[in-house]
Amino acid sequence: MSRLSSQISESAEKVNRFIEKVVNLENEPKLLYRAARHIIDAGGKRLRPFLVLKSCKLVGGREENAIPTAAALELLHTFTLLHDDIMDKDEKRRGVPTVHNKWGVPIAIVAGDLLFAKVYEVITKFTDAKHVAPKRLVQVLKEISEATVTICEGQTLDMMFESKETVSEDEYFEMIQGKTAALFATSARCGGILGGANKSQVERLGEFGRYAGIAFQVIDDVLGLTADEKVLKKPVGNDIREGKRTLIVVCALEKASKNQKKRILETLGNKDASPERIRETIELINSLGAIDYAKEVAEKYIERAKEALASFPASEDREDLISLSDLIFARQH
Amino acid sequence: MSRLSSQISESAEKVNRFIEKVVNLENEPKLLYRAARHIIDAGGKRLRPFLVLKSCKLVGGREENAIPTAAALELLHTFTLLHDDIMDKDEKRRGVPTVHNKWGVPIAIVAGDLLFAKVYEVITKFTDAKHVAPKRLVQVLKEISEATVTICEGQTLDMMFESKETVSEDEYFEMIQGKTAALFATSARCGGILGGANKSQVERLGEFGRYAGIAFQVIDDVLGLTADEKVLKKPVGNDIREGKRTLIVVCALEKASKNQKKRILETLGNKDASPERIRETIELINSLGAIDYAKEVAEKYIERAKEALASFPASEDREDLISLSDLIFARQH
Repeated sequence: MSRLSSQISESAEKVNRFIEKVVNLENEPKLLYRAARHIIDAGGKRLRPFLVLKSCKLVGGREENAIPTAAALELLHTFTLLHDDIMDKDEKRRGVPTVHNKWGVPIAIVAGDLLFAKVYEVITKFTDAKHVAPKRLVQVLKEISEATVTICEGQTLDMMFESKETVSEDEYFEMIQGKTAALFATSARCGGILGGANKSQVERLGEFGRYAGIAFQVIDDVLGLTADEKVLKKPVGNDIREGKRTLIVVCALEKASKNQKKRILETLGNKDASPERIRETIELINSLGAIDYAKEVAEKYIERAKEALASFPASEDREDLISLSDLIFARQH
Repeated sequence: MSRLSSQISESAEKVNRFIEKVVNLENEPKLLYRAARHIIDAGGKRLRPFLVLKSCKLVGGREENAIPTAAALELLHTFTLLHDDIMDKDEKRRGVPTVHNKWGVPIAIVAGDLLFAKVYEVITKFTDAKHVAPKRLVQVLKEISEATVTICEGQTLDMMFESKETVSEDEYFEMIQGKTAALFATSARCGGILGGANKSQVERLGEFGRYAGIAFQVIDDVLGLTADEKVLKKPVGNDIREGKRTLIVVCALEKASKNQKKRILETLGNKDASPERIRETIELINSLGAIDYAKEVAEKYIERAKEALASFPASEDREDLISLSDLIFARQH
């Protein structure tokens, strides 16, 4: 196992133990807490918490000061997954049934709400006031709230795009900056704030997170069409079936001939499209160079992310963040 | 207009202006912001913000310091309404279609999430740091988060009770302490904290809010069965149709003969029950003394709420809170 992988596992272990304590399966009503923990317990790489902890250490902070916020941002991420899965009518996530699929929409809504409330409860209750000034803590809470507003805006755009005929690349990037990149940026910024970073350090960490987050989403779009279904743990081509305007689809529609465009649009958002039809559409999209294009774009953003770290003094923590961005590009699921 | 009514209107006016600024209809995507404002703009008495502002003043604080939190707690209340309406499949609220009825479930979910995120954004961004110490602000955010966790637990119990054969009075009170009373208690506590209250004052304000909140919910249950539909602005007897275990239903089922119990249970939760059938059931429940019993219980809690204020020195603000509790008991909608 590489140094990075073992570090990610180690930080995930700490964060998981903390989450098990604060979203406790023994709490009543048990149904609610089981539903809230379901997707957390099903897996996930805990990349956002890792980003919080590493950013804290990069600026010389104590990791312990950032653990509650690291865990809280995983809870925030999970809350968005629960609600997104309802909106997208997704049946599987991380190899298990989605919460609404298993317990119904009402429980999935309230379990998401609980996780969101826990974000703030965990940070205000468990951050050590001896080591983190209340003023910094208020700043962290403000950052998280602003990011969540942006996530809601991005999620709404994502849904609106499904019924829009043409979506431009600019619109796509605006949408994923909200839906995905905002939380990566906030994770890095909050880690920095908790570690005692100055304003300029917080800005650069935020840039790193934002660019890495954009690359993460673009690669996610690629994997959704190209990954092995067993590794992906959800149906390949779901995005096509749901009519999602990924960068790949946006690019393919731009490059397609009139006839090709018609064929793509006929499959896009067609819930009843056969696996064969989906496969053909992915092949067409690939032949237009749209998947390669998305990989190039992701690579470019990874480079930008690394540049944002350039002005930090060389250190093991900086190297780890650079390796993290490489991992985001090279991941298989 | 009584002194209290004009004060409530005045504080509602301030809170509404603030909300219009922070949940701005000009923001993009407009659809999201329109959906988030829909139920706020349709009315509501803004009792929770009033409780925040009055509690702040009662302990000698500046009202301005509490305006962002007062508005935020109305946003929090509205977020729970949007999500509850989806879970309960309610079609109308405040005389207008519910958000999910007008724009669909996905938009209603994300509009609720946006309002919840705005709660924290508004407080961290607009509370004047010159007048409110960050430590007090963190305390306010902690109180709100804990209350929201309790609200989620209460809302889950409310849903679980629909399919439970017997619900006891104790279980009913546990459920509404979460679903309703926690937010009233938190409104009063946060007002106190922002006004500079000491711990014991915060406790007593919290008791006032909690007891007033319990009475509020019990009266709400009564009005749901007895109010004029035009004033109620939603169908009379909805609770019966949805199978809600209100105090009235809990009491009626306890007092009913075997046959009467059977008749009540046949109507309870029957979505297709005719208006005639609902009317008959309400009459049966009333004849068992269950509605009078609920009114007595509400009155008892109003008395307790007033007692919680007894140790505060006499003042106009204390009189206003006492009048508020009388209004909660005497309200017609």
